[in-house]
Amino acid sequence: MNLIAPAPDRTSAFLHPFSDLGSLQQDGPSVMTEGDGIYVRDESGKRYIEGNSGLWNAVLGFSDSRLADAASEQYRRLPAYHAFFGRVPETSARLARRLVDIAPVPMARVFFANSGSEANDTVVKMLWMLARAEGRPQRRKLLSRRGAYHGTTVMGTSLTGKDYVRAFGLPPEGVIFLTCPHYWREGRAGESEADFLDRLVAELEQTIVREGADTIAGMIAEPIMGAGGVIPPVAGYFAAIQPVLRRHHIPLVADEVISGFGRTGSLWGSQTYGVEPDLIIASKCITAGYFPMSAVMVSAEFDDRLTAASQEFGEFPHGFTTGAHPVGCAIALTVLDILLNRGVLDHLAGIIPAFQSRLRSFAGHPLIGEARGVGLMGALDVVADKPTKAPFPSDFEVGERIAKAAFRRGLIIRPLGNSVIFAPPFIMTRSEIDTMFDIVQATLDEVLEGLRA
Amino acid sequence: MNLIAPAPDRTSAFLHPFSDLGSLQQDGPSVMTEGDGIYVRDESGKRYIEGNSGLWNAVLGFSDSRLADAASEQYRRLPAYHAFFGRVPETSARLARRLVDIAPVPMARVFFANSGSEANDTVVKMLWMLARAEGRPQRRKLLSRRGAYHGTTVMGTSLTGKDYVRAFGLPPEGVIFLTCPHYWREGRAGESEADFLDRLVAELEQTIVREGADTIAGMIAEPIMGAGGVIPPVAGYFAAIQPVLRRHHIPLVADEVISGFGRTGSLWGSQTYGVEPDLIIASKCITAGYFPMSAVMVSAEFDDRLTAASQEFGEFPHGFTTGAHPVGCAIALTVLDILLNRGVLDHLAGIIPAFQSRLRSFAGHPLIGEARGVGLMGALDVVADKPTKAPFPSDFEVGERIAKAAFRRGLIIRPLGNSVIFAPPFIMTRSEIDTMFDIVQATLDEVLEGLRA
Repeated sequence: MNLIAPAPDRTSAFLHPFSDLGSLQQDGPSVMTEGDGIYVRDESGKRYIEGNSGLWNAVLGFSDSRLADAASEQYRRLPAYHAFFGRVPETSARLARRLVDIAPVPMARVFFANSGSEANDTVVKMLWMLARAEGRPQRRKLLSRRGAYHGTTVMGTSLTGKDYVRAFGLPPEGVIFLTCPHYWREGRAGESEADFLDRLVAELEQTIVREGADTIAGMIAEPIMGAGGVIPPVAGYFAAIQPVLRRHHIPLVADEVISGFGRTGSLWGSQTYGVEPDLIIASKCITAGYFPMSAVMVSAEFDDRLTAASQEFGEFPHGFTTGAHPVGCAIALTVLDILLNRGVLDHLAGIIPAFQSRLRSFAGHPLIGEARGVGLMGALDVVADKPTKAPFPSDFEVGERIAKAAFRRGLIIRPLGNSVIFAPPFIMTRSEIDTMFDIVQATLDEVLEGLRA
Repeated sequence: MNLIAPAPDRTSAFLHPFSDLGSLQQDGPSVMTEGDGIYVRDESGKRYIEGNSGLWNAVLGFSDSRLADAASEQYRRLPAYHAFFGRVPETSARLARRLVDIAPVPMARVFFANSGSEANDTVVKMLWMLARAEGRPQRRKLLSRRGAYHGTTVMGTSLTGKDYVRAFGLPPEGVIFLTCPHYWREGRAGESEADFLDRLVAELEQTIVREGADTIAGMIAEPIMGAGGVIPPVAGYFAAIQPVLRRHHIPLVADEVISGFGRTGSLWGSQTYGVEPDLIIASKCITAGYFPMSAVMVSAEFDDRLTAASQEFGEFPHGFTTGAHPVGCAIALTVLDILLNRGVLDHLAGIIPAFQSRLRSFAGHPLIGEARGVGLMGALDVVADKPTKAPFPSDFEVGERIAKAAFRRGLIIRPLGNSVIFAPPFIMTRSEIDTMFDIVQATLDEVLEGLRA
């Protein structure tokens, strides 16, 4: 790529997602140039452990030549095509079959899009289409949870249970948020974990009755919340809410964008947490971050209904130009092969105990209120006062402080409100896990010392 | 990719976008396996001219090794990264600068997403965010046009002026559709083209006054409608409506997903049709279909407002995981180099007259009511009766019949309602243009004969 000489001021034209635009104008961005295993390198040559696999997705690290080769081979055979109008790249059809074969519950077909956001939009449109075609057009409301993250289209943002959603005047009416199933933070004084769960189940039942079951198109849930701060559900959560949903004929959509393909220690988060979804969304790890891609999996029964509902317009009137891109599908097939047949999931199972053990050891640190996680994901929740769990004031940006201090020490972790989160590549070794958490230890001590100074 | 053996029934798990699901279950898909120049090949070895560049996007054809090399090189340097939290791949920052340098109007920054849909959602969220932050939260309505296509997220579909949008119970309140600026179809008996334009301008003015200018967040428009059936605006359209929008402080968003990067004969559709947009969306040709990617370009003034509006939440709270993917950006830089510096746009200028001349010659065919187009895009609008412009009954699917007959003859063109459309790769030669239209001639004659039989 030496065809075009870099402009002198080459970074200033870039509008950064999820970044502090004001401070970027002063400090400029961190420009990344190279990858090597679990490391990325910036333009100064400094190397960082990528403790979040980029954005949860680069699970095979930043230099997997097998994925580069798969891309290259497809680029030389059929480098671009779509699946509209009854055509399909051969590679893409093959991936659909492969995904159906490994789904956590029986699934019949796969729809491909470019991102988790687009997959979630697809699911909402499918549910609304069926509602209308089947004579229940009022079935439009959607259930989500506070703390949930479901993407960044207008609809994805609307389903997201975070404060910043207000910035856009969202969510619109008809998206209903249930309590975040986080016992440590949401449980009331004296409330047992079982009582907390009972309260959540009662809230769901009451919400459905209040809104009217026949006005609700579906409920969407991450098996374990990711961008909400790595929040495993209270024990027994899905086993308890699923009968309620079923009784009211409300489909459950599992957003496996983060949890799909191994992150929680099982192939699917649905397996780890006993989710029995009607629809599944996958993205991120499906291509290990090497290509934008997402998948929506539907059951045979759902597929039949969709086919029937499509007849009015002579087609299923929905699709994305580059959904099912043959290169993305070639990469995904190789990712699945590497995960399942080349030992990566076995390796993962081997390192998870060390990861969780080092992570949880921080529960004793003066700054840490909760050390939580599952599989190869975790969070350290920072508190100002351990007994009351009181957080630092938000303008103190304690998560940000910790992440910045870690960055200076060569470790990339992600601040999320009052916590910092970890989701390293699956290829991390035991000794790299130790290196990572040694840096975390030094970082927390440094920040603590700064607070006391 | 011989790592995983194909399953025996490898196509049945694929849920096809924009396809007739019922007939697919009977007939099966057309499985595409290889590309070569302007041709794609199916699994039987049959070769087709891709008369639509895939979905408008594969403008450099299906075997450009320079793009494969650019991808390969980036895959071996930094194969995956994001641009959240003030970090950015070096290649992605470079592409942003390059796009700003070639924008049709002065632009300051570029935001990247994965698709035209996501780019349109981004623009809507930006407009809503500014409205709220600047004390005008009621500025939420959006103006679009009947016949417009703006994508397939919930919001993209809502902005699309097509019948099938109803299938999803969309659009929601607050999306307002103006008349499609297609004089041949929408002009009234005896109405001159100038009178038609006056009527559209009056309609816009009246709509703004009726709704209240201060309730409207923006207007979105393709410089030339693409998926609506290749519909150039009536002469003088943008010059006439822009002063109205400006007087009412309503920003104009140019959806250049199809028209960007050469399709209309200029680098931008905005240049061809005198559009002076406040925001520009690009996708499709930006990677020649070799990678999912889109861009939103904003002016310096807009960027400053966005930075100010972001302060409340400490960040610009919007972004897509794989937006600004370094491999997509490496491909896009190479596409731009090939288009601008390796003679493709010059070649394009050379073949456009032959393309338009052959296309327009079909105006004399008994089946064709209008032969229209610009640059290297065109449509043949089929009528049952030329004097009255009466179309065939829709269940007759005349566009579909023509496209299927052409497909049998080795040419892929796209049916759109009563028309068939053409948007071949920019690398097509004069002789390939003749071959393509010779097939069209034979196809139309065959279909006509079938009708008379």
